[in-house]
Amino acid sequence: MAKDNKKMVDAIASMDEDFAQWYTDICLKAELVSYTSVKGCMVIRPYAYAIWENIQRILDGMFKDTGHENVCMPMFIPESLLQKEKDHVEGFAPEVAWVTMGGNEKLDEKLCVRPTSETLFCDHYANIVHSYRDLPKLYNQWVSVVRWEKTTRPFLRSREFLWQEGHTIHETAAEAVEETERMLNVYADFCRDALAMPVVKGMKTESDKFAGAVSTYAIEALMHDGKALQAGTSHYFGDGFAKAFNIQFTDRNNTLQYPHQTSWGVTTRLIGAVIMTHGDNNGLALPPAVAPVQVVIVPVQQHKEGVIDAAAKLRDILKAAGVRVKLDDSDNSPGWKFAEYEMKGVPVRIEIGPKDMESKQCVAVTRHNREKVFISTDCADEVFVNAVRERLTAVHDGLYRNALDNLERRTYKCTSTDEIIKALEENGDGFVKAMWCGEEECEDKVKELTGVGSRCIPFEQEQISDVCVCCGKPAKKMVYWGKAY
Amino acid sequence: MAKDNKKMVDAIASMDEDFAQWYTDICLKAELVSYTSVKGCMVIRPYAYAIWENIQRILDGMFKDTGHENVCMPMFIPESLLQKEKDHVEGFAPEVAWVTMGGNEKLDEKLCVRPTSETLFCDHYANIVHSYRDLPKLYNQWVSVVRWEKTTRPFLRSREFLWQEGHTIHETAAEAVEETERMLNVYADFCRDALAMPVVKGMKTESDKFAGAVSTYAIEALMHDGKALQAGTSHYFGDGFAKAFNIQFTDRNNTLQYPHQTSWGVTTRLIGAVIMTHGDNNGLALPPAVAPVQVVIVPVQQHKEGVIDAAAKLRDILKAAGVRVKLDDSDNSPGWKFAEYEMKGVPVRIEIGPKDMESKQCVAVTRHNREKVFISTDCADEVFVNAVRERLTAVHDGLYRNALDNLERRTYKCTSTDEIIKALEENGDGFVKAMWCGEEECEDKVKELTGVGSRCIPFEQEQISDVCVCCGKPAKKMVYWGKAY
Repeated sequence: MAKDNKKMVDAIASMDEDFAQWYTDICLKAELVSYTSVKGCMVIRPYAYAIWENIQRILDGMFKDTGHENVCMPMFIPESLLQKEKDHVEGFAPEVAWVTMGGNEKLDEKLCVRPTSETLFCDHYANIVHSYRDLPKLYNQWVSVVRWEKTTRPFLRSREFLWQEGHTIHETAAEAVEETERMLNVYADFCRDALAMPVVKGMKTESDKFAGAVSTYAIEALMHDGKALQAGTSHYFGDGFAKAFNIQFTDRNNTLQYPHQTSWGVTTRLIGAVIMTHGDNNGLALPPAVAPVQVVIVPVQQHKEGVIDAAAKLRDILKAAGVRVKLDDSDNSPGWKFAEYEMKGVPVRIEIGPKDMESKQCVAVTRHNREKVFISTDCADEVFVNAVRERLTAVHDGLYRNALDNLERRTYKCTSTDEIIKALEENGDGFVKAMWCGEEECEDKVKELTGVGSRCIPFEQEQISDVCVCCGKPAKKMVYWGKAY
Repeated sequence: MAKDNKKMVDAIASMDEDFAQWYTDICLKAELVSYTSVKGCMVIRPYAYAIWENIQRILDGMFKDTGHENVCMPMFIPESLLQKEKDHVEGFAPEVAWVTMGGNEKLDEKLCVRPTSETLFCDHYANIVHSYRDLPKLYNQWVSVVRWEKTTRPFLRSREFLWQEGHTIHETAAEAVEETERMLNVYADFCRDALAMPVVKGMKTESDKFAGAVSTYAIEALMHDGKALQAGTSHYFGDGFAKAFNIQFTDRNNTLQYPHQTSWGVTTRLIGAVIMTHGDNNGLALPPAVAPVQVVIVPVQQHKEGVIDAAAKLRDILKAAGVRVKLDDSDNSPGWKFAEYEMKGVPVRIEIGPKDMESKQCVAVTRHNREKVFISTDCADEVFVNAVRERLTAVHDGLYRNALDNLERRTYKCTSTDEIIKALEENGDGFVKAMWCGEEECEDKVKELTGVGSRCIPFEQEQISDVCVCCGKPAKKMVYWGKAY
C-alpha cells in the first residue's frame, strides 16, 4: 500500500516546489483535461465536466430563484454590430477570432466568434423592448466564448472557455445597480456555500473596468500560492449601450427613455480556482457540493465472504438518499484506490472489511485532513446517512476554514511601497491592503515598484492610514492589491 | 371574449391555407424565436429555450442511465484534422464556416467551426485509448454546431443550431452496432414518451448516409402537412475513423486492434417537429413532459373577493407537487388569457371564479381538444393533484393519438410510380410504402417521377409486392418514401 501510494504521489510535482507544474499535473492526472490539436483549446474530460454540471445546476437554480430566464443568442457577431459601442469594440476587437469564409465563399462582412454577447443582446432588446411593460428583461445564457489569448493554461486562460453570461435591462439606473450588486452577492454566496471558497467583494478601478461599463464589480479569491484570482464579475452599463443601439422605451409618463443595463458572468475558471484553493500534494480536494463523487466506498479484503455485499448495501443506502456515491470493487489494491480517489479529491472515503463488519461499523476518512471516524452500520438507514452527511459537512467546513486561514494569513496591511515589498518578501505572495489616492498614475507606480496591481476597491472599507501608499497625498479608498492569475 | 380570441387567432395564418406561414407565425407569436442581424441565425427566446431545457434534462437522464458521460470538445477543427477521413471531409467541407484570423493576425492554418465533432473525438481517443481496459468510452456533449446553409428556417434549418452529439468507441463491431441501435431506440422512446410523437425507425439508404458512416439509422416523423422530418440519427462507423486517425488498442490477446465507433444526435429541430406535429389554428400545443408551463390558472371575475386567493391556493398545491404551474392574475381579460395560453400551447388551463368556488370545484380545459372537465377542490391536496395529472396525461395521450392517426391516415402502400402520384394527388403529401430493388438509379428515378425521396428502410419490413416500384426487378426492401423538411 505504501508503495502504491508513493507511485501515485510521485506522479505530481510538489506544490511548494513548483506550484505551476503541480497545477498542470493535477489537471492531467486527475483526468480533468486533455490537450488537443487545436492550439490554446482543451478537452474538458468527464470528471471536470461533471464538476461544471454541478456548478451549472446550483448557479442556474440561484439565477432562476432571482427571476432570470435562459435564452440563447447566436455565436457570431457581424463586425458592424461589434463596432456600435466604441469602448466595447476597442476592448475586444484585438482578441477575437474572425470568420471570413462560409463554405467556399468569402463573406461580405466578417463575423467574429462572440468574445461576450452585449452587442447581440442589445440588438435583440432593440427589437423587443418598447414600453415599460416590457421591462425588466432578466436573461442569462450558458455558452462558450472565444478570446484569442497568446499564452494559455487549463481553466485559467484558454482561447475557448465555457461560461454563463447574464444580461439584464431595466427601467431605472437604481434598479440596474441593484441587480449588479445582487448578482455579485449571488456569486459570493455560491463561492462560499458551494465551492468553500472565501472571496473579497469590491469594485474594479477605472483602468480595470469591463470595456463599455460604467462600473465593474468583482469577487477576488486568494489561491494557495498567494496569487489572486478574479472569480466572477458583474457590470453596470448605465444607458451607454442603449444609446449606441438606440434601445428606447415609453415610460410610465408616456415619455421616451433609454433603459439601463447590466451583465455578469462566471466561467470554467472556477474549476481552476477550486484546484488552487483546496488541492494539496496528494491531488485535488473537492467541495462536496460540486464533487462528481461525494463518497467512494473501498472494500478491504474484498475476496472475503460478504465484504462486497456489505459495501454494496452501504452504496445502495447512500444512493437512495441522493448522495453521489461510487463503490470501487475493481481488482486494484485498496492502497491504489486510496491514492486514486485522493488524487481525484473525493471528499469522503468509506472503508469496510471483515473486521469492520464484525464490529458493525465502517471507517470514514475525510479527504482534506485524512481524519478517520468510525460510523456505526448497526442503525436505521437514515441514521447512517446522516452520519455520512455530517462527514461531508466536515469536509466543506474544513476546506472553507483552511482557505480562509490562508487568505487571512496572507493579507498584509501596508502604508508604504517599501512595506509592501518587505511583506511580500518575508511572507510570500498575498493580498496587500493599502490606501490609494485614486490616481491611475499611482496605481501603475505601485505595480511597477512592488509587482502587485490593484485587485479591487473592497465594499468593506478600512482606514489603514490617511494617505496614498504611493504619493502620500490624501487617500480616497482602501484597495486590495495582489499578483493575479 | 370572443373578440379577444379572434384578434389573437387572426394573428396567425390558417395552417390549411399556408402551412409555411402558419409555422413562421407560431414561431414569432408564441415568442419562440426572434430574428437577428446575423444572417441565418436566430435568438432562441426564453419560452423555446425552456422547452429545450426540458428536452435536455429528460434525454440527458436517459443517456446517463445507459452509461454515458458528458464531455466538452473545442468548437474549432484545424483544416488538417477535418481532412483526415476522406468521405467525412467531402461531406462537410463545402458547408463549414472558416476562421482565418485571430485578433489582427492571419492564422497559419485555418480552423472551421465544428459542423460535427467526429474528428475531435478521434483526435482525443488517439491520446487516451491504448488497451481494451480503456474501452468502451461512452461520451456525449451538448453544444452548438454550424453549417453554412443557404436557405434557413427557425429550428428546421439554421446556420447555427443546438444539439447533442454522442460519440462512443468500442472493442468490437458487434458492441458498436448494438450501441447504434440502442441510441436510436432511446430517441424513438423519447419521441413517443416525451414529445407524444410517433416515429418510424429504419436505416438510411447508401446515398443518404452520414459522411464517413458504414450505416446510418434514423427516426422519421410525419408532420401535420404530410411532409417527413428526420428527427434523429445514429451512425455506425466501423473502424474507418480509427484507421484514418490511427487509434489502436491492445486487445485481450495482446494483439493491436482498431476499435469501432458510433455517433448519434438530435437537435433543436425537435422543437420544430413538436410545432408541426401538434400545433393547430389556435397556436402551439405542447406535450406536458416538455411544456415550460404545464398548467395555467386563469381566475374569472378576479376582482371578486377570494378569487385570487383561491387561485393562488391551487397554484401552491400544484407547485408543491412538482407541477410546472403559472397563475396569471394580470389585468388582461380572461378571454385574452385563454387565447394567449392556447397560442403558447399550455397543456391544461384551470379556470376558477366565484361560481366554481361556491360549488367547490374548478374547470380544467385540455389544450388539444378544448374539453372541459370539472375538478373538485373539496378534497385532499393529493386527490386534486392526481386529478390534474390525469388531465395532463389526457393531453399527452390525445396528442399522441392524433399524431398517430395523421401518420396512419397519410401512409400509402403503392406498387407503381403511377400509384404513388395518384395517392399523393388524391390524399395529399404523406409517407409512401413501396418496394425497392436497392439500386440508386431507381431511388433517384422515383424521386424524379413522383417527388418523394427515400426516407428510410424501416426495421419493420412488410412485403407489399415482389418487385421494385420503379424498375420491376426483384425487390430487396420495403422503403418509406416522402417529401422531407
